[in-house]
Order: sequence, then C-alpha cells, then structure tokens
Amino acid sequence: MNKVYVLRLGHRVSRDKRITTHVCLVARAFGASGCFITGDFDPGVIRTIDNVCKRWGGREFECTYVESWRSFLKDLRKNEQNIIVHLTMYGLNLPQVIDDIRAAYAAGRNIIIVVGSEKVPREVYELSNFNVAIGNQPHSEVAALAVFLDWLFEGKELSLRFSDANLVVIPQARGKKVVRVS
Amino acid sequence: MNKVYVLRLGHRVSRDKRITTHVCLVARAFGASGCFITGDFDPGVIRTIDNVCKRWGGREFECTYVESWRSFLKDLRKNEQNIIVHLTMYGLNLPQVIDDIRAAYAAGRNIIIVVGSEKVPREVYELSNFNVAIGNQPHSEVAALAVFLDWLFEGKELSLRFSDANLVVIPQARGKKVVRVS
Repeated sequence: MNKVYVLRLGHRVSRDKRITTHVCLVARAFGASGCFITGDFDPGVIRTIDNVCKRWGGREFECTYVESWRSFLKDLRKNEQNIIVHLTMYGLNLPQVIDDIRAAYAAGRNIIIVVGSEKVPREVYELSNFNVAIGNQPHSEVAALAVFLDWLFEGKELSLRFSDANLVVIPQARGKKVVRVS
Repeated sequence: MNKVYVLRLGHRVSRDKRITTHVCLVARAFGASGCFITGDFDPGVIRTIDNVCKRWGGREFECTYVESWRSFLKDLRKNEQNIIVHLTMYGLNLPQVIDDIRAAYAAGRNIIIVVGSEKVPREVYELSNFNVAIGNQPHSEVAALAVFLDWLFEGKELSLRFSDANLVVIPQARGKKVVRVS
C-alpha cells in the first residue's frame, strides 16, 4: 500500500531538538509511516520517538537519519510513484491544491512531505511536485505538518489506533485515564 | 465581537523558547486575538512575536505575560461569556466536541484555548469547560493548537489577511515572492 513520509530538513542539535521531536511525533500521531531527518545527527530525537513508539504503539514507525537531502529527494523524484510536497508559507495555499494531492494519494502514489527549518535551499522548491502553504503567514513547521496531514486524511487520523500499543488513553471529559493493554 | 485567545502554560526560558514562540505564531496566523504566557518571564518570545506582527501585520495581536494561571483562569470562569478549552491528549476527541464549541463561539462567547507543557496541574482540567484531545496520542501543543483553530474556523483562517501588514506573500507554485505593501 502507498504511504506517507516526512522529511525534516536542516535539523540543528541545540536549536531544533524539541521542534524536530514535535515534527516526528506529529508524523506518527497523524498517520505518516516514518520520518527522515537531515542536518545534524541527533540520536536524542530518534531515541525519544522510539520510546514513544514502544509505549504508545507504532513500532513500525521509523525515524531515520539521511546524509544528503539532495540525493534523497532526487532519488525519490526518479520514481513517478512518489509525490514530493514541500510545506512553505510562500507556496500555493492548501485549499487550492489539496484536491490534486488527495487524488494522487488515492491513485496509489506515496506522499513525501518536506518541512524545513529557517532557510530552505531553492533547489527544494524545484525538486518538489507541490509547494504548499498552510496559510501564507509565518508560523510553524509543526503546525503546518499537522494541518496538512489532517486535511489529507480528512480528520480520520484523529481516531488512529496502534495495535501494538502498551498504553491507551480512555478519553475523559475531565482528568486522565490510561490503561495498560499489553 | 467575541474573540479567541490562547493561554500557554508553564513556559521555561531555556527549554521552551521555540515551542512557545511557535504557539504564539500559530495563534496569530490562525486567527486568535492574543496569547497569554505563564511560567518564566521571557521577553525574547514577546519581542519575536512583536517583530512578526510589525512586518507581517496583526499589530493588535498581543502576547502578554500572566503571573498566575490559577487566578487568571478563575477570573475568566466567573464570566459566562468565556469558554475555556484545554487541549490535552487525555480529553474527549475533537470530532466529538467541536460542534458544541463552534455553537458556543457562534453564540458570541469568547474561547480561551489552554495549551500546556509537560505536566498540567489537575486544577486546569477542573477549571476548563472542555478538555479536548486532538487525537488521543502524544504529539505537540503547537500541532494541537493549529488543528483546533483550523476546525473551529473551518479552514477560513488559512486565507487570513492582515490589513496592517508591511509584507505580503504572493503565493507561488515554485519559489518565493514577497511584496512590500506599506
């Protein structure tokens, strides 16, 4: 089955630790199959996500370090099965392009969502099939990724369950309830 | 007119600088009228947001430091005009409660969205009218806030324009185009 992946560009250990962790957590929680990270190698992020996957499920979700985003994206582009969607405030606004992207996904193509940090090289815009703005205002790659996945999956991702979870939340109007299921 | 505000709980200068900044940027970009921050006082975050508002518009959007979240929330609760919505992975899932919250907003009530950091005191759950999960998985307060606002405003916030902007993005399929409008 076709899948959705996230590529996080330009991670810097000191500055981006928590933002990159949030990007990966959103990728997992909102239905992507894995996250690729470029920039500084940071075992801390990968360990955090592995721990979440062990406790809350999704052991197949993988965070992988990628040496060169350029050859990574170029290789992906060679296969017409893949659609690269770069999220940027300079792109076409989401409502304008979501139908085309949903159609590509429904037709069995993989979606690779690229989220940058401060400065994204021009080549990323060129290598992407779609440059998509989650609104044309400055905000957050974490927010952009979440809203994009929510639109792509039309809200169904909010009910995602992981069959290999150790812990499951029982939703409560007030307070917390977590049960151990394995 | 009734408004939407965000309360960011428990900011810690070193650890949360970028996450809190992203929370405030999302609040502004997705149509909230202001952001209140509790925890450490951090002029850096407030300065960053002020600069964004000066360049990209929204000078009326304000980030304000709040000494005590407890008395702040208690005061808000005294006025029936206000609805407090706490975003937490332990709450009722968004699709289940969004209609009630939209109805309250449409009826002219203010919405105060509370987002926490790591540990949220039990009292916050008690003081909130709604405890809402953006999916019952661990992820990100930045993502949770963005998706909540996107559902509340039904995607209209993605086309938000600020009449007092100096800079405006002209959406492009490839590349960047920004024009100075004042």
